[in-house]
Amino acid sequence: MASTVLVIGAGAIGAFYGSLLAQAGTEVSVVCRSDYERVRQHGFIIDSQPLGRWSFTPTQVLKNVADFKGSPDYILLCTKVIPTLDRVALIRPVVGRNTSIVFIQNGVEIEQEMLDAFPNNEIVSGLAFICCNRVGPGEILHLAYGRLALGNLPNGVSDKTAQLCELFNQTGIECGATDDIVTGRWQKCVWNAPFNPLSVLSGGLPTLDILQTQESFVRSIMQEICDIAAAAGHPLPDNIVDINIEHTYAMPPYKTSMLLDYESGQPMETEAILGNALRAAQRLGIPSPHLESVYALMKLRELKLGYLP
Amino acid sequence: MASTVLVIGAGAIGAFYGSLLAQAGTEVSVVCRSDYERVRQHGFIIDSQPLGRWSFTPTQVLKNVADFKGSPDYILLCTKVIPTLDRVALIRPVVGRNTSIVFIQNGVEIEQEMLDAFPNNEIVSGLAFICCNRVGPGEILHLAYGRLALGNLPNGVSDKTAQLCELFNQTGIECGATDDIVTGRWQKCVWNAPFNPLSVLSGGLPTLDILQTQESFVRSIMQEICDIAAAAGHPLPDNIVDINIEHTYAMPPYKTSMLLDYESGQPMETEAILGNALRAAQRLGIPSPHLESVYALMKLRELKLGYLP
Repeated sequence: MASTVLVIGAGAIGAFYGSLLAQAGTEVSVVCRSDYERVRQHGFIIDSQPLGRWSFTPTQVLKNVADFKGSPDYILLCTKVIPTLDRVALIRPVVGRNTSIVFIQNGVEIEQEMLDAFPNNEIVSGLAFICCNRVGPGEILHLAYGRLALGNLPNGVSDKTAQLCELFNQTGIECGATDDIVTGRWQKCVWNAPFNPLSVLSGGLPTLDILQTQESFVRSIMQEICDIAAAAGHPLPDNIVDINIEHTYAMPPYKTSMLLDYESGQPMETEAILGNALRAAQRLGIPSPHLESVYALMKLRELKLGYLP
Repeated sequence: MASTVLVIGAGAIGAFYGSLLAQAGTEVSVVCRSDYERVRQHGFIIDSQPLGRWSFTPTQVLKNVADFKGSPDYILLCTKVIPTLDRVALIRPVVGRNTSIVFIQNGVEIEQEMLDAFPNNEIVSGLAFICCNRVGPGEILHLAYGRLALGNLPNGVSDKTAQLCELFNQTGIECGATDDIVTGRWQKCVWNAPFNPLSVLSGGLPTLDILQTQESFVRSIMQEICDIAAAAGHPLPDNIVDINIEHTYAMPPYKTSMLLDYESGQPMETEAILGNALRAAQRLGIPSPHLESVYALMKLRELKLGYLP
């Protein structure tokens, strides 16, 4: 029998990966708020530069999580991680005894609240390495990359997680299972912690301009993330900063997700990426003055935008 | 015989202090570029909330420094300190044997080039503590404060500097002579180094919002300036950070000069205030990661605005 998947937060990431699971033969339903009417009538169009173009008609299209009939085998939680959205409360109505909770989200130290709230469920932390944007209601443009990494919390890879990886791999997207997804999360943060806020605070510079003029500042932030990760029990490879720098020089100039959010007036993942890393640093006694500065400036920028302090 | 004064850079600061010296009986000429036609025909109007309203008709109104006839007793240099303006080349045409060069300008470590270029002239470093804006061509609004501090370089107070102080004091503005004006310059930087860039990078917050939400970040930058100043041989009072914090809480919410420049598309004094402090830190081996972060972000902001790196 086909597995059932409920995608919660069917923006670019949720719709893209959900559509792949549908291709692989699972029953995929989606909860999407902003594009609900359009998606209910016409589904999604995925325009993938590497993989071609396809449409995706979810089994159920829902405006609210609680409208889902039954308990899914997998929840794919793909919302942004922002303080005004309670992830636990959002998914609770559909978490059944056998539901695996998979979150494909940015940020560090976003695991514990899930483990606390659902101690008897499989919790799977996921990371997407992808350039993928919503370009219109129900329309997703996949520009490049696409690799997924999944791993159970607190660590390991369950059979069910391995099955999910296998489904993704059938579709031509690389999905790796990892014993230590938390380390992977810190590893992704090495790139996100400098480039996301710097793109916003600079007033909209793409990654290459930032790197070409402020490489040493970028490296300082990256190194602080490495130090925090190591103190948190997740040491990263010695050359991770060099690799990130080289990789970014090789990328085409790129607008970060935080800059896209900023430009479209959407909330930014300041807390998930920077605030959580900084709180870990404070808890563990790791000096991180560059990260502290960037976080403080992002909070000032948000204050100016009208966010509550 | 009355002294002659040439104000170079007759913006808000130059016109305000120049007008006071004219009141005190000196012959004051001005070099002003942007408002030249208007000022040549109508002089300046100074609207001072604490001191009343007066007009100021300079003896000569000049578009270029070299047009000045003779050598003034005092040059009052009041331009901004920005990399694209060569202060030495600007004033050289009118520096005579007996000319005192007085600069009322922001920033730290802006003295040496003057000392090197004019080794046989009196060089006087000045600091203005004033809220004063140009509100139209030839129209200056003086909102509050106004104290001046003057001192010879490398230190001490010459007779001629004491005379200039006396002239200012006659007009109701407090002008203090100080043996150690370089320390005064670092002291002013304690306030400028956080509030100027944070007001810009936040997207336009006034000082009070910055302080109320990010006091500890502000304090970190202030403390780094104190550490650099001490290493440079200019230790500041132990309680200087506390005093600046208290003073800023007591001020009405205030838009910094850098924010006003930013909002009106004018060049900002990023190098004079932050760049010079940071270069001193690097020379002296003083860690200053918060200052470094703020400077790097200002440079990114300037890059986005089209400044050359």
